[in-house]
Amino acid sequence: MSYWYNNTAPDGDIAVSTRIRLARNINGYPFPAKMSAAQRKEVNEIIKNAISDIKLPGINALNFIDMSDVPDNERYSMLERHIASREFVLNSDNKAIILSDDETVSIMIGEEDHIRIQVILPGLQLEKAYEIANSIDDAFCKKLNLAFDNTLGFITECPTNLGTGLRASVMLHLPVSEGNGDILSITKSVNKIGFTVRGMYGEGSGASGSLYQISNQITLGISEKNAIDNLKVISQQLIDKERKLQEGLNSVQTEDLCMRALGTLKYARVLSSNELITLISRVKLGINRGFISDDINPIKILIEGQPYMLMKKYGSMTESERDAFRAEMVRNSL
Amino acid sequence: MSYWYNNTAPDGDIAVSTRIRLARNINGYPFPAKMSAAQRKEVNEIIKNAISDIKLPGINALNFIDMSDVPDNERYSMLERHIASREFVLNSDNKAIILSDDETVSIMIGEEDHIRIQVILPGLQLEKAYEIANSIDDAFCKKLNLAFDNTLGFITECPTNLGTGLRASVMLHLPVSEGNGDILSITKSVNKIGFTVRGMYGEGSGASGSLYQISNQITLGISEKNAIDNLKVISQQLIDKERKLQEGLNSVQTEDLCMRALGTLKYARVLSSNELITLISRVKLGINRGFISDDINPIKILIEGQPYMLMKKYGSMTESERDAFRAEMVRNSL
Repeated sequence: MSYWYNNTAPDGDIAVSTRIRLARNINGYPFPAKMSAAQRKEVNEIIKNAISDIKLPGINALNFIDMSDVPDNERYSMLERHIASREFVLNSDNKAIILSDDETVSIMIGEEDHIRIQVILPGLQLEKAYEIANSIDDAFCKKLNLAFDNTLGFITECPTNLGTGLRASVMLHLPVSEGNGDILSITKSVNKIGFTVRGMYGEGSGASGSLYQISNQITLGISEKNAIDNLKVISQQLIDKERKLQEGLNSVQTEDLCMRALGTLKYARVLSSNELITLISRVKLGINRGFISDDINPIKILIEGQPYMLMKKYGSMTESERDAFRAEMVRNSL
Repeated sequence: MSYWYNNTAPDGDIAVSTRIRLARNINGYPFPAKMSAAQRKEVNEIIKNAISDIKLPGINALNFIDMSDVPDNERYSMLERHIASREFVLNSDNKAIILSDDETVSIMIGEEDHIRIQVILPGLQLEKAYEIANSIDDAFCKKLNLAFDNTLGFITECPTNLGTGLRASVMLHLPVSEGNGDILSITKSVNKIGFTVRGMYGEGSGASGSLYQISNQITLGISEKNAIDNLKVISQQLIDKERKLQEGLNSVQTEDLCMRALGTLKYARVLSSNELITLISRVKLGINRGFISDDINPIKILIEGQPYMLMKKYGSMTESERDAFRAEMVRNSL
């Protein structure tokens, strides 16, 4: 199975992934939070039928999955692969998800809204991700009676999603911009124009792994195209800046930092989730600087080293057992 | 050139090296501290002539080296190879050293005493080292008029060496005994019976690299054989205890510690002298536990990674340049 993170991607040296999410609801049903179990099942069926004959170019088979059939470890691992939200996997009663074989497309049913179409692609690929999401949205529009208001646009449970229902986000690896303190000023300035920056792992300014997600906050009074174009410009600026900063790192100390991280990953017998993130970040930098072979896919290792990804593969275990399995998995990947 | 640390040795898992030193002086000359330059040269010549036709079984050719001909880096590196004393290499005016090809035998001329015969062997080999030192001493006794008193024994400058003039020492690698705090109680009890324990690298109780030297302090009123037998018993006890403690270390955490050390040594691009000692110590433990191949000779890497050993090979350089050369040398050795 080739998941989204298995592929190389445009601007993949800095851009880890691009996500597009569209929130949609069906007329005649309350929002999921107010739905009865019977209504949830009805909506699941309606959407299941709607996708049954959808064939879209470039999207491989869509599979309807009843979340109550999904074992815990598999369910929580969806969060770690970034194909479902925390709320969705924590409480999945009467929920369902539609996944393409490569998990590029994931459609959550019964999350905050009836339908959440998500497309995730590696690197910076906003137009392509939007195009895919949009083709699915078009297909739903034809088959379902979606809640839409001529003034407000698509109706969503949370007012912050009203209008386009679009959330576009880009995950960037910004170790040098972070080290420079640039992230703080960037966060402030993009906030002013309706975008947010947040660390993907860890809390506060010292996001572990230097992975940051930049996303739009405004969905009302702005077209999808504008929102995506703006995010693309911001992302490209951040990427160019980080790339330039990385190119300036020529010291043996940088090489040492990156190579030691690789050495630890190759030799450790116990590896916590947090340490993995920190070391993977340095290895990624080392690949960009040419110190480390680009045969290594650090993002794949990072994702496959997450707790539920490991337990999905090796079965449930304690944290310390997991740290040993993680170290083994990482060694085998390198 | 195969130096003493290139060879495997009895009890080499714990015992790094054995050293025997005999202090001797020639009648008719003051002790070196009081000698004129002319007298020093005279004594050098006398001893040079004395060894010119000494052929001893098991000892390869003895070479007389005028220390003023030895470049600084080479001279200081003798200290790092444990074949000369600090005082001797720091001020080497009119001093000389006699070295066997493999540096197992080193005879300092003009140190604190006229003659200091030293034999160093890998592992625990007290009898063998003493036998070699004794055969050289015998040869000198026949050819030179050595200062000897029927009551006091061999006359030495420092009263603590009077008598046998013998100092026997064993260097042991005691990481678990150190971690347990056993070293402190061992030090106290061996002090009471005339032996000392001191860290070989670093100061105080936290000797970096867990390398400890145990040596006799009493040279008067005790035969060479007794001193050596006692040291052997003490060393063997410490070795057995440490070995047993190491055998009890089965946790993945121990394996992790040792393997990470190896990973860092294999991948670091900058390596300080202190870090090298710490990591080598863990690698040595990892070899004993079977985690790491015993093709690796950690003591050779430790010694060849010392500052002057590096500069003797690669030329003089700053500390930070040295840290990079050290890392390269270590990588090439692994």
